[in-house]
Amino acid sequence: MINKPIPEIVVGRLPQYLRSLQRMAREGRQVTSSQELGERLGISAAQIRKDLSQFGEFGKQGTGYNIPFLIEQIQKILHIHHDWDIAVVGAGDIGSAVARYKGFTDRGFMSGSSLTTIPLRSVRRWESLWCTTMRKSSKLSDNRHPGCYDRRTRLVRQEVADRLVEAGVKAILSYAPISLNVPQGVRVQYIDPSLHLQRMTYYLC
Amino acid sequence: MINKPIPEIVVGRLPQYLRSLQRMAREGRQVTSSQELGERLGISAAQIRKDLSQFGEFGKQGTGYNIPFLIEQIQKILHIHHDWDIAVVGAGDIGSAVARYKGFTDRGFMSGSSLTTIPLRSVRRWESLWCTTMRKSSKLSDNRHPGCYDRRTRLVRQEVADRLVEAGVKAILSYAPISLNVPQGVRVQYIDPSLHLQRMTYYLC
Repeated sequence: MINKPIPEIVVGRLPQYLRSLQRMAREGRQVTSSQELGERLGISAAQIRKDLSQFGEFGKQGTGYNIPFLIEQIQKILHIHHDWDIAVVGAGDIGSAVARYKGFTDRGFMSGSSLTTIPLRSVRRWESLWCTTMRKSSKLSDNRHPGCYDRRTRLVRQEVADRLVEAGVKAILSYAPISLNVPQGVRVQYIDPSLHLQRMTYYLC
Repeated sequence: MINKPIPEIVVGRLPQYLRSLQRMAREGRQVTSSQELGERLGISAAQIRKDLSQFGEFGKQGTGYNIPFLIEQIQKILHIHHDWDIAVVGAGDIGSAVARYKGFTDRGFMSGSSLTTIPLRSVRRWESLWCTTMRKSSKLSDNRHPGCYDRRTRLVRQEVADRLVEAGVKAILSYAPISLNVPQGVRVQYIDPSLHLQRMTYYLC
């Protein structure tokens, strides 16, 4: 393990590698190569080798990567060798869909009936969490009326984020189309389909 | 405009800048600075100036950025000064939520009743699109039974992507937790909540 900071873009690719490796494992595979992984992901083999080498020595030239071993190593690097508690804040269209999402199993996060969809006072025991539409989570403010969270109101969203941070939440995955201000040490990622689309239209004519 | 390729990570930040600027414009603001933009986004002012300078000269030291002008310029850079046709493929939980998503308006994409949720034969006139759960879009294969798309089946997803590419689609935003193989010239972005969460757990202990 090297001690210089790893670029965020490299860290961001590890979950993609992991997802492909887990798929191969489910197919009963034992060994793969950076070539094969690259073909599955549309990333060059050289890039994959370079990325992985920043975290350690995981394969040998000529013999490739041992899939179960590499899965275990990446899970450790990403701190998902144990499950994180997560919670969905909000029960609108997106929140409900996310709460039913099948893609958490074996990926480091509580899912199904273990997945929490509860009010703020219970937030204290969460460490990782995401934040979706707020319409029905009325207990997050002192206002008990469902619908008190206007999805277009920036201040309300920020207030909810503030309360989550106060409660000790360290990571927020926000589906709300606003940028949240959080203190150092708290991570935020956004899922905003328009933003993802705009990243592609740049390349289209 | 400089002719060397701009790093993808820089292109990826432009939509964030645009979203903040559009919010300021809605607040009636005329001028902003890289400092203010940086504070709203949690990105350093220097980074924002450096990013924007890769695309041209948009502000003057001491006077800041003219918001309507900068919005227009970024919209042109991202090719969203006109609306793109988009379509939601699939009408499961996520697909339905996305079809009702309010965040497309004024962001370069058709929304509301203009947003298409139809079968493949109409794909020919689309250029930008995303691809969600497939359960009800039975016409995308020759099998007419709704539910023929098993959401866990890799091959089916890939087959749908292949058909979309054949039909001339140039950009796919996929909510399916698999990596798609597409030819050169076709862009794919993925929205996978587990993947986004894993990008954050790396930084948590």
